[in-house]
Amino acid sequence: MSEGGTLIGVGVGPGDPELLTLKAIRVLKEVEVIAHFAKAGNASNARATIVDHIRPDMTELTFRYPVTTEIPRNTRDYCDRMRTFYDDSAATVAAHLDAGHRVAVICEGDPLFYGSYMHLHVRLAARYPTEVVAGVTGMSGCWSAVATPIAQGNDVFTVLPGTLSENELERRLEDANCAVIMKLGRNLPKVRRALRRAGRLDRAIYVERGTTASAASMRLTAKMDDEAPYLSMVLVPGWEERV
Amino acid sequence: MSEGGTLIGVGVGPGDPELLTLKAIRVLKEVEVIAHFAKAGNASNARATIVDHIRPDMTELTFRYPVTTEIPRNTRDYCDRMRTFYDDSAATVAAHLDAGHRVAVICEGDPLFYGSYMHLHVRLAARYPTEVVAGVTGMSGCWSAVATPIAQGNDVFTVLPGTLSENELERRLEDANCAVIMKLGRNLPKVRRALRRAGRLDRAIYVERGTTASAASMRLTAKMDDEAPYLSMVLVPGWEERV
Repeated sequence: MSEGGTLIGVGVGPGDPELLTLKAIRVLKEVEVIAHFAKAGNASNARATIVDHIRPDMTELTFRYPVTTEIPRNTRDYCDRMRTFYDDSAATVAAHLDAGHRVAVICEGDPLFYGSYMHLHVRLAARYPTEVVAGVTGMSGCWSAVATPIAQGNDVFTVLPGTLSENELERRLEDANCAVIMKLGRNLPKVRRALRRAGRLDRAIYVERGTTASAASMRLTAKMDDEAPYLSMVLVPGWEERV
Repeated sequence: MSEGGTLIGVGVGPGDPELLTLKAIRVLKEVEVIAHFAKAGNASNARATIVDHIRPDMTELTFRYPVTTEIPRNTRDYCDRMRTFYDDSAATVAAHLDAGHRVAVICEGDPLFYGSYMHLHVRLAARYPTEVVAGVTGMSGCWSAVATPIAQGNDVFTVLPGTLSENELERRLEDANCAVIMKLGRNLPKVRRALRRAGRLDRAIYVERGTTASAASMRLTAKMDDEAPYLSMVLVPGWEERV
């Protein structure tokens, strides 16, 4: 019997169940409720990573995104729908917290680094005891999978969403010693052009499905197609001045 | 009896032994040799994190940095001494690999993200089978300890060394949605001025000893002194456009 509800954001790492932390596993053992976000029709990657730790006596909450690519982003309609979705999800979690349950929201990578958990956190953390369990990020999983040193010493490291304009990507790639480009998808041709213009294409490494069994990587210049599935990214390693 | 030597860079996370991954613990169980870097006269933080996994039958290699602040960096003398030090350390590891031992080089945070392991990796990875075990970074440990969302959506995230000039820090802080500033030490007064000039001082959070028992954090504007111990950092959270 728990004394009061606690919200816990649990990073489950980049996909390999062995990259779970001891703390994540302990928390999963202790909670009455697990929650996760998933795309409609898609299995949750976070859930797949911790599937061995799901117990029959747990309550499981799945929050399915109402829209993904059907409505253009940056529109009022999209923002309204997403806000309502996160409000409703937070209300569902709050009902469990009010009942004294501990609720673990499982997240790919690290909960506070581009994670959907943050939408619940900002709605609930002021009202309920809250903990966050750091996780191995997807990008760490990717550069470790290809054993490529990414940043060292006084390197400036930058994470760039592939959604930026080509000019903006070029400018920022020229200005950073090392970078990771996420959200590739349909942005890959633009990302290639920006890397070429910034003089960084030859260093770029394409990685998909980081630490899963179907992981693949290659120099971006050797990748002939422009297909970039979910969880793919481009690494631009730094550390050009080695001792 | 192992068939051949293997070099393994093992991320041990930000300091809390519970933030070790299952994979790091398995590797530590399997290896004959562990190695780590340490400052002269200082205990290694990485070693302290995994001390419960050290076995009496393990060989332990400690590589002590020959110089830290006694010689100015960016001098020929400093670079020569460090290169020799890393060459000698790699030769010691290579002797164990040639004897068929598995050697785990333990690293705070993630091995390929500003880690000393990389100096061994670039000297040995072409000659020996090599694996890298991703770890929770120090920065993830810090923002989780203070439960502060750092980056979301299309945020550009940047890691800045406090060693940059004040103008450079200001320019880059103005240009990023969110940032982490590392290597504070004697650079803290300069970092404060750059944050104020970039209009980001009010958002800045100072964190020291992230996920250790002596962790502390506060708004940087509330920190009255300019003491910043090893492993301290400043977080500048992003996600200013929330749905």
